Amino acid sequence: MTHVSVDEHAVRVAALLGPALEVGAERVPLLSALGRVLANDVLAPVDLPLFTNSQMDGYAVRSADVANAPVTLPIAGVIPAAAGEPPALAPGAAVRIMTGAPVPKGADAVIPIEDTTVDGGSVTITRARSAGEYVRERGSDVRSGALLVERGRMLSSRHLAALAAAGIGNVDVRQVLRVAVITTGSELVPPGEEALPGQVYDANAVALIAAVRMCGARVALSRRVVDDPAQLLAALDEAASAADLILTSGGISKGDFEVVRELLEPRGATVVHLAMQPGGPQATAVFEGVPVICFPGNPVSTQISFEVFVAPHLRRTAGLAPERRETRTLSSGVHSIAGRRQFLRGTLVGDAHVEVSSGPGSHLVAGLAASDALIVVPEDVTGLEPGDPVEVWHL
Amino acid sequence: MTHVSVDEHAVRVAALLGPALEVGAERVPLLSALGRVLANDVLAPVDLPLFTNSQMDGYAVRSADVANAPVTLPIAGVIPAAAGEPPALAPGAAVRIMTGAPVPKGADAVIPIEDTTVDGGSVTITRARSAGEYVRERGSDVRSGALLVERGRMLSSRHLAALAAAGIGNVDVRQVLRVAVITTGSELVPPGEEALPGQVYDANAVALIAAVRMCGARVALSRRVVDDPAQLLAALDEAASAADLILTSGGISKGDFEVVRELLEPRGATVVHLAMQPGGPQATAVFEGVPVICFPGNPVSTQISFEVFVAPHLRRTAGLAPERRETRTLSSGVHSIAGRRQFLRGTLVGDAHVEVSSGPGSHLVAGLAASDALIVVPEDVTGLEPGDPVEVWHL
Repeated sequence: MTHVSVDEHAVRVAALLGPALEVGAERVPLLSALGRVLANDVLAPVDLPLFTNSQMDGYAVRSADVANAPVTLPIAGVIPAAAGEPPALAPGAAVRIMTGAPVPKGADAVIPIEDTTVDGGSVTITRARSAGEYVRERGSDVRSGALLVERGRMLSSRHLAALAAAGIGNVDVRQVLRVAVITTGSELVPPGEEALPGQVYDANAVALIAAVRMCGARVALSRRVVDDPAQLLAALDEAASAADLILTSGGISKGDFEVVRELLEPRGATVVHLAMQPGGPQATAVFEGVPVICFPGNPVSTQISFEVFVAPHLRRTAGLAPERRETRTLSSGVHSIAGRRQFLRGTLVGDAHVEVSSGPGSHLVAGLAASDALIVVPEDVTGLEPGDPVEVWHL
Repeated sequence: MTHVSVDEHAVRVAALLGPALEVGAERVPLLSALGRVLANDVLAPVDLPLFTNSQMDGYAVRSADVANAPVTLPIAGVIPAAAGEPPALAPGAAVRIMTGAPVPKGADAVIPIEDTTVDGGSVTITRARSAGEYVRERGSDVRSGALLVERGRMLSSRHLAALAAAGIGNVDVRQVLRVAVITTGSELVPPGEEALPGQVYDANAVALIAAVRMCGARVALSRRVVDDPAQLLAALDEAASAADLILTSGGISKGDFEVVRELLEPRGATVVHLAMQPGGPQATAVFEGVPVICFPGNPVSTQISFEVFVAPHLRRTAGLAPERRETRTLSSGVHSIAGRRQFLRGTLVGDAHVEVSSGPGSHLVAGLAASDALIVVPEDVTGLEPGDPVEVWHL
């Protein structure tokens, strides 16, 4: 086992994940596409508006006929919305028209109802209007064949509305990345059951499943295995056929019962000890063609390792914005171990400060829950004073 | 019908929604609680860690026995994780211990494996350690009875991990607000079907359903009705028994076929014309005790009205952060109508600028899709120059 840097491991993970992140496309109904990433450019299949229509409730006229307003015109009829193709407007007449209804041939302006008075079968128009006023021309929003929504866009309500307006019922979106989560450890019991002496609750399954979902990927399979290579092998077999990427926790350190290491190291896994705290022991492997990223078993190590090495890739694949990272001013001093990149748990204070909110221990799972940031202390720094600038990752 | 201000209508909508937003609680399995809002404080039901355990793979010892290191001690056995209650450590002995395994009674320090050499049944410890070193004390993360996760918190992976670590399998979360969406208009056809002359595709159903979901609420029911009061009444009846809040689009203006207005105004609806563009005609009502917020039918008006009057309430109820609003510098000049608050469509440029990206028309649904911001022009402003500061809402 060699000590390697966080950056070197990150590069290895990225290279391993690269092909798995090249997901294909699938066609889904419009509403299932919310929050998904558009796989191809969508060109407008029609003009929008579909036909020239009225912007107001009022009277469609020839603008030439009202140039000398006030003027009184006979009312030729009424055009509601959904009227079909209305008859052409005769010169010297007006037709009552509703918002969105098709403007008849011959008419080129709409007089809002406020500028009219009706007496029997005639309407008096009190104000002249030019050609085009209160008329929405066919194709004035977008022309048939023009780009409607571009590929790579994460689809929001406004994109779906435009696609719907153009009559599109299904769209091609990127498939959701399928992730398998395998937690290992003979000491683990699922939350909700009773832990016997020496047993602990499995926080890593819940943590990884939830974190994967927050990154816009799907958990295709989740297994909890004891420290038995045969059980782990069976779980990996299942996982490799169900998922594009496998995450494991535990069993990767230097102890006597390191099941992940024992099974995968002979199969070519790269097992490393990272210059990182928490999260020293880590590994990468390929199992039946599927990348396997192995995290240590301490729940804080697992969560921070996921955030450092995997989350940014999943978020990008799902079209999500990266988590916010910024420089802030430290409110309290900290000590750090030379030669390790430390990820301390912090609390954001106001807009510009951050304070350390929990100890550095990799078991402080409640401390992490109570924090809302990670504070990154570089390898060559052994201490920071109040007022020093630090890199902060929002959680 | 009176002209009322955006602010006055917003106050009316807020008052109407208030009681509906007071959702109850429901108990759900931990993983179903991801992204939900915790209804009650959760106190730790146990100490975390559950028992005093080792931080390292190594040897558990009495610190007094290694004070004069190097020292050689007999190995009394091995404690894997999940060992149950290990036997007490005899004075003058060491026991091999794995990370996370229970530290036996009598031991008060763990010697990391790196500081040891083993020869047969004995281990030589090369470096002294004080009491407590590499030992994680029971309760050192959180004590039984202390606050683990506070009410009102939107649950993220790190909160679920802490709850799982404490053995909690189910949590009480706020119920998800149930919203009904009713789109009206005889001219509407669903996307995916064929629009006949005079018909248009219903963009509002998709837009509102998607927007409601983006705000963390659930669409309990969605209906599309023609301009027939009996059909609308039937849809409202269904909606009132299925949802906490009803949204309608269309049928609220001054035309001849305004079905929402025709049905609800006699039932006490407040129908207004807002000093707002887009989005003039709006209404609020209560139907069988359920608040009804009525938007105009133009798809851009519907979407912006939802964003202005309803989205902030839904987001807050779901524990989501408010949408980002900030002041930016306008890149291009704009004209605006006196006495109306205008919501122009904009494109964010860099970190500090915004430019107008689409016309003001309420039918420009593709233009809205291509925008990523709204530019708010106050009622008393009739024109803005490049370089002027404007309020910008991120979409």
